[in-house]
Amino acid sequence: MAIRTVVWGENIHEQTNKVVAGIYPNGMHNTIADALNGDGAIHATTATLQEPEHGLSEARLAETDVLTWWGHKDHGAVDDAVVERVARRVWEGMGLIVLHSGHFSKIFKRLMGTPCALKWREAGERERIWVVNQGHPIAAGLGEHFELENEEMYGEQFSVPEPLETVFISWFQGGEVFRSGLTWRRGTGNIFYFRPGHETYPSYHDANVKKVLINAVKWAYNPQNSFKSIHDAPNVPVEKALEPIEERGPKLHEAGEAGYR
Amino acid sequence: MAIRTVVWGENIHEQTNKVVAGIYPNGMHNTIADALNGDGAIHATTATLQEPEHGLSEARLAETDVLTWWGHKDHGAVDDAVVERVARRVWEGMGLIVLHSGHFSKIFKRLMGTPCALKWREAGERERIWVVNQGHPIAAGLGEHFELENEEMYGEQFSVPEPLETVFISWFQGGEVFRSGLTWRRGTGNIFYFRPGHETYPSYHDANVKKVLINAVKWAYNPQNSFKSIHDAPNVPVEKALEPIEERGPKLHEAGEAGYR
Amino acid sequence: MAIRTVVWGENIHEQTNKVVAGIYPNGMHNTIADALNGDGAIHATTATLQEPEHGLSEARLAETDVLTWWGHKDHGAVDDAVVERVARRVWEGMGLIVLHSGHFSKIFKRLMGTPCALKWREAGERERIWVVNQGHPIAAGLGEHFELENEEMYGEQFSVPEPLETVFISWFQGGEVFRSGLTWRRGTGNIFYFRPGHETYPSYHDANVKKVLINAVKWAYNPQNSFKSIHDAPNVPVEKALEPIEERGPKLHEAGEAGYR
Amino acid sequence: MAIRTVVWGENIHEQTNKVVAGIYPNGMHNTIADALNGDGAIHATTATLQEPEHGLSEARLAETDVLTWWGHKDHGAVDDAVVERVARRVWEGMGLIVLHSGHFSKIFKRLMGTPCALKWREAGERERIWVVNQGHPIAAGLGEHFELENEEMYGEQFSVPEPLETVFISWFQGGEVFRSGLTWRRGTGNIFYFRPGHETYPSYHDANVKKVLINAVKWAYNPQNSFKSIHDAPNVPVEKALEPIEERGPKLHEAGEAGYR
Repeated sequence: MAIRTVVWGENIHEQTNKVVAGIYPNGMHNTIADALNGDGAIHATTATLQEPEHGLSEARLAETDVLTWWGHKDHGAVDDAVVERVARRVWEGMGLIVLHSGHFSKIFKRLMGTPCALKWREAGERERIWVVNQGHPIAAGLGEHFELENEEMYGEQFSVPEPLETVFISWFQGGEVFRSGLTWRRGTGNIFYFRPGHETYPSYHDANVKKVLINAVKWAYNPQNSFKSIHDAPNVPVEKALEPIEERGPKLHEAGEAGYR
Repeated sequence: MAIRTVVWGENIHEQTNKVVAGIYPNGMHNTIADALNGDGAIHATTATLQEPEHGLSEARLAETDVLTWWGHKDHGAVDDAVVERVARRVWEGMGLIVLHSGHFSKIFKRLMGTPCALKWREAGERERIWVVNQGHPIAAGLGEHFELENEEMYGEQFSVPEPLETVFISWFQGGEVFRSGLTWRRGTGNIFYFRPGHETYPSYHDANVKKVLINAVKWAYNPQNSFKSIHDAPNVPVEKALEPIEERGPKLHEAGEAGYR
Repeated sequence: MAIRTVVWGENIHEQTNKVVAGIYPNGMHNTIADALNGDGAIHATTATLQEPEHGLSEARLAETDVLTWWGHKDHGAVDDAVVERVARRVWEGMGLIVLHSGHFSKIFKRLMGTPCALKWREAGERERIWVVNQGHPIAAGLGEHFELENEEMYGEQFSVPEPLETVFISWFQGGEVFRSGLTWRRGTGNIFYFRPGHETYPSYHDANVKKVLINAVKWAYNPQNSFKSIHDAPNVPVEKALEPIEERGPKLHEAGEAGYR
Repeated sequence: MAIRTVVWGENIHEQTNKVVAGIYPNGMHNTIADALNGDGAIHATTATLQEPEHGLSEARLAETDVLTWWGHKDHGAVDDAVVERVARRVWEGMGLIVLHSGHFSKIFKRLMGTPCALKWREAGERERIWVVNQGHPIAAGLGEHFELENEEMYGEQFSVPEPLETVFISWFQGGEVFRSGLTWRRGTGNIFYFRPGHETYPSYHDANVKKVLINAVKWAYNPQNSFKSIHDAPNVPVEKALEPIEERGPKLHEAGEAGYR
């Protein structure tokens, strides 16, 4: 069965900015979904900010294996309840790919627990993305590096937690560096941040970027992704202890009582 | 100068439960603070849920190097604004030691970005804490393991992010294991979670536990702990680029305009 | 195509010790290979210490995707040249699963760069293996824990480098704990250490152990596993720099000269 | 007491190459030692390849807290026995700072278990070193970045294990990036790799480089650095088990017998 992937797009600049509309006439989300659907193992659909529940109902998320997230202009417009819902699905095992300006999305900051801030410059400069972890599945089929002739600069310090693995580091023409591909796991969900994708440049039409997106969805996919127990803090009664023990000393809770949360 | 440490205590069960009041007549926070003040390099004071702003005003936090956190009965009573304030200080470099049932505190869940759930059993069973990282500063002066004859059991899976380092793992009489000492960094702040400390047992009177608390405060302390820039996402204008570049291609932002957050 | 797996066995105690021969009449390596071949995606063959080049010729390793390693009685008998050959294949992307007493094998110590020492007791006690990383592919299909009624005890401190991820932690009846499932990457090769498997107990006949072995081979498998360039330290001449630069200052090397190694 | 630091230098090019001798008339090792001794908390002495046992006798290493290592021209001339001796001291808790071309030293490769290879170009180009982990003690007192106007280029992929933390990333004028400051722990010893320091440029006279060296020695220093037990694999007899157990099942070893290594 194909990997059920939802490509989430903020879909504002495509509607309001002629440059962006020119590059992505069907919206960035559709360009990204088309790229993913170019691989037979992935079945991608889209969701946008403007849809009810931003297109991310409980029912739909329950049937989503991997979610990709691009937003920029109005992170604040995303409903907190939907953010929490997505976070719960990630903990249960849904993969999450956060793209470019999504570093400041509510969902990314929620899962990282840090500011996720960085330097930036919008000058259409050259970005060279180096693979620093050659065997990583997300880098499969790439050379040692690839280039985007025009991109926005993002510079360190990128205030995210130390990653599980650093996959890409970018060199920028103006003199900065950036950890452009980072992985984490939160709960049982795999998370990948991928830097490129400023909306005034055609980055999501780039063959190497598309390859990374496809690789990332496959890497993030966990066939077992409905770990509902991740949310639970079960009491194990004395009589059900795996080794026989006797209750000793004073206690707070009556038998069968739930813990405090 | 001594490490300015604030010991935060929820201070509920000490006031409402005779067993807890008997073990900690001055409150757990004072017992912990006394333990820390037993080391000349630390200057510990206390703060409690009941104080205005829970004792954690902006001004006080600005002069705090390390904060320890114990709560259990009423995590929900902690003001969200104070939680956010503490999170910001951690990102700026303040150390944070989270104790026992503090695993479900708002501040810990905020910084971890995960459920922080676990199994539990209140049976006064034996806990044996093994040092799995012998050279770690937090384990200084301990043997290979130490025991607490009566403790609450916490069992895996503990749904926190993969730590920077695992320092302790507990063995429980009833058959479970638990990663009892874990480190992370969030922003520039060091975070340590330490498992023992159920309020119906005298764990904070234990000499080894006290040693760990002292070690942890010293480890978490960062002399440079006011990194205000951690919150910023500065624009670097083209004319101030470190390497000379020319602006190319279309852009969204006018010169001097702030980015979207 | 199936994952080409070689199961390496020391094959000494099966020939010299009646108890071991009784449990593993065809040798532990064949029991393990049979378990792996029970999964259609894996094609496992065996190699032993006694074969020429220990069954690990250059040609065979070149066509091996994943190697599993069990040794105990005579680690010293393994030829250093074969150890180095295996290390190179791991760096190039071959997966490696190190089993039980293999913690002291030359190849594991070579790749870890540490003593890889631990405590031990041969008393046939109960081991309970807890999954501490529920979504990890190596734990797929397991419950929260599983038990082996008779096993050798291995206890911390296990002197290996901090792992990429901790998958399993064992509880032992005699009071110890051990990180029983750990992952690392070295070069482009995935490495997994799995604790159980003392030769006087039937652990490799256990259904859960077999499941872990199968999962581990699939996890360690990297379809791209011939990164020959991992060994190289290429010079990039000035005239081939990706950005135009001029040579400045004095230098040691003449054009085209190799670096020192 | 000051941190007892030994600065090891290969000391070949200073004797044979006029450019290098001009920049480091007393040898690179003495320049580095002088820099370290500029900080009152450090007491640095030197050792060189040419001395008996390369200046690293058992007795001297036993009284060394931190060792720094610079070599380039003749890594192969370092005695394997001395390499093993240094590795053992690192496992016991001695800190190790590996500098520049020391990436190919026997001791670094021994402790990493990987090729430690990289790209290089000797063109005197500009290197800009970015701090990607602002609160890290090794970056104390630095700005967001610092520059070395003339340095050798080292480029990714740098085939070392995923580090504990990435502290610095370098930008090079010719288009490459490199993880210039990485930390690991091996056994109980802290290890830091720091990239700059090609012998034909005056990098060790640079104020920021000196600051990093001082910070790194302080970070690597572990007051408890004689963990002899790190090498041991002790048997725990049944009668000394922490919890009462009975011996069950067959076994290989007679009581009191040592394990196989």
